[in-house]
Formats: sequence, structure tokens, C-alpha cells
Amino acid sequence: MSRWQPNARGRLEHAALELYTERGFDQTTVAGIAERAGLTERTFFRYFADKREVLFWGQGALMELVTRHIAEAPDSASPIDAVGAALKATGELFEGRREHARRRQAVIDANAGLQERELIKLASLAVAMAEELGRRGVGEPAAKLTAEAGVAVFKVAFDRWISATKNSDLAEVVGQSLDELRALTAST
Amino acid sequence: MSRWQPNARGRLEHAALELYTERGFDQTTVAGIAERAGLTERTFFRYFADKREVLFWGQGALMELVTRHIAEAPDSASPIDAVGAALKATGELFEGRREHARRRQAVIDANAGLQERELIKLASLAVAMAEELGRRGVGEPAAKLTAEAGVAVFKVAFDRWISATKNSDLAEVVGQSLDELRALTAST
Repeated sequence: MSRWQPNARGRLEHAALELYTERGFDQTTVAGIAERAGLTERTFFRYFADKREVLFWGQGALMELVTRHIAEAPDSASPIDAVGAALKATGELFEGRREHARRRQAVIDANAGLQERELIKLASLAVAMAEELGRRGVGEPAAKLTAEAGVAVFKVAFDRWISATKNSDLAEVVGQSLDELRALTAST
Repeated sequence: MSRWQPNARGRLEHAALELYTERGFDQTTVAGIAERAGLTERTFFRYFADKREVLFWGQGALMELVTRHIAEAPDSASPIDAVGAALKATGELFEGRREHARRRQAVIDANAGLQERELIKLASLAVAMAEELGRRGVGEPAAKLTAEAGVAVFKVAFDRWISATKNSDLAEVVGQSLDELRALTAST
């Protein structure tokens, strides 16, 4: 068996999600994932630090993409517009991965420890966005409020996107959710 | 020693916060808390299930108060107004407890496990508020969006309230933060 395996990462991820769904996250072992993928445990650890990272390895890319888009927003963009554009840009990360995201979410929803990890991820995203807004000269509490509201929009939009009966574009659902938040907060 | 101790709960809470601050949460034992409070471990367990509950026992009251206020908001209140009024009402729970809340937050900020617990608490609050809005006939995604935005406002307001150099009213800071969110989302 050659050391290089075509799309080993994708096969491991697919096998892991299958097993987490069939047996539960806690009952799944790295050995079981490697076996299902037709690869070795050694190969698994070349890609993932542990079985939890299979579900969270995309966090770095998400964080990087969102903060970069906030940094690169035109000077004229309001804080909420900069955040909105950055969150819409996440659509590219999830393109063609809706079914994967849906299954991943079901695994997370079934496990308290994974839910905590997901909450921490979103809290970190809010902190990173607020800091990036601060670098744009947005003061407090505007930076934190905008970042937290942005995460609120993203959570709701992501949930709608994976639950929708037909395929849709995450960017579009984020845009709609942000518009809805605007309408909701404008009402008196 | 008589079984009844005047203000045992308050003394235990005070002693616990002192020790968590001095030694760190992980290094503090129930025995140490009881000793500092001049009470027995047995008395401690009459009030708290474990040392973590000293920091989180107020969650039930917070949840109850917020959902009750959403339920009791006038029919004419918009979702965001119902949530805003409910969050302002939490001011009564924290009256005279700003110094306590400030020290509690410092303990939580220094401990990853406690931060997770706090995030779960706020996520549960959002779920409870969204459900209560649903009972008022608010549809989705409006209910979830309003609830998540409300929690965003509450987080930022609470942080401002405990960090402020002079004493202020939590209800007032919640109201200001909500107004600021309105202004931020209204901008284009």
C-alpha cells in the first residue's frame, strides 16, 4: 500500500461521520474510522489530532475568512455591513457541503460535549470579529454588539440552511436573516 | 452549634468567591469553603450540589424571570420589545450584587470549564426565550433571531455593567445596549 492515499482526508471524514451517526460519537474509535475508510490509524493522525477534530478542523478557515473579509471591507462600510459581507462570504466554504453540514450538525446535537465545543467556536468567532472591527476603528460597545448580533444571525441562518427542504445558498440565507434582524429591531 | 445558621447561603457564597479568587476555582475544595465560612461541609451541601453550583444557582431564577416577562408582555408588544422588557427586568435579580457579579465573572473568565458552563447557560436562555416567543405566536426565524439578538444584547450589557467605573443600573445598561443595537442594524 503506497503511503499516499487519494483523498484520504475526505474518506476519513466521510467514514467518521457515518460511524458517529450509526454508533454515536462516544462509541466510535479512531481505529474504527480508519478501518471503515480503508486506511490506517497512522494515516488518520496525519490529518486529524483526534476524532473530535474531524468535526471542527474547519474552524480555523472560517475564522480566517470572516476576519479577512471584515478587514478588507471598504472604509465606507458600516460595522454591520462589514460583518454581514464577511458572514455571507462563508458561503464559499460550505459550497457543495450542505449534506455534510447537516449530518455533522445531527452528530453535534446528539452530544453535550460537542455542543459545548460548538458554542465555544461561535463565542471565539464573536471575539475575533469584535477585535477586527476594533482595528477598523469601531468603538465599544458597537464592536461587541455588532459581532454578537452577527453570530446570532449566522447561527440562525446556518440552521435554516441545513434544515431547508431544498438546496439553497448559505450566503443568500445569511443575507435574508440579516435583513430579518434589521426588520425585527426596527419594529417598535 | 445549632443546625440553623443565619444567612448560611450568603456566607458560603461569599467564602467560595473569596477562595476561587485567591486560589483559583480548581484548587478550592468544598471543605475549604465551609471552613472559611465557619460552617460544616454538611451545611454546604444543604445549599449547593457542588462547588460549581455556587456560581450558577441563579440560572433558574434568571430563566424563570425572563420567560415570565416575555409571556406577560402586552399583546401589542413586538418580539424585540417583549424580549427587551424581559431582559431589563433582570435588573431586579442583580440589585446590590454588582460587586458580587464582577468577582464571579473574574473567576469564570479565568477557567475554561466555567466559561463553557456560562456559554451553555446563555444558549439555554436563548432557546427558552425563542420558545416563549413561539407561544406568543411569533414565527420562525423571527423568534430565534430575536432571542439570539436579545442574548447578544444581554451579554454586552452585563459586561458593561460589571466593568463600569461607577455603579449603575443593569436595566438601564440593557436598555442602552438594545438602543445601540437598533442604531447599528439600522445603519446601511
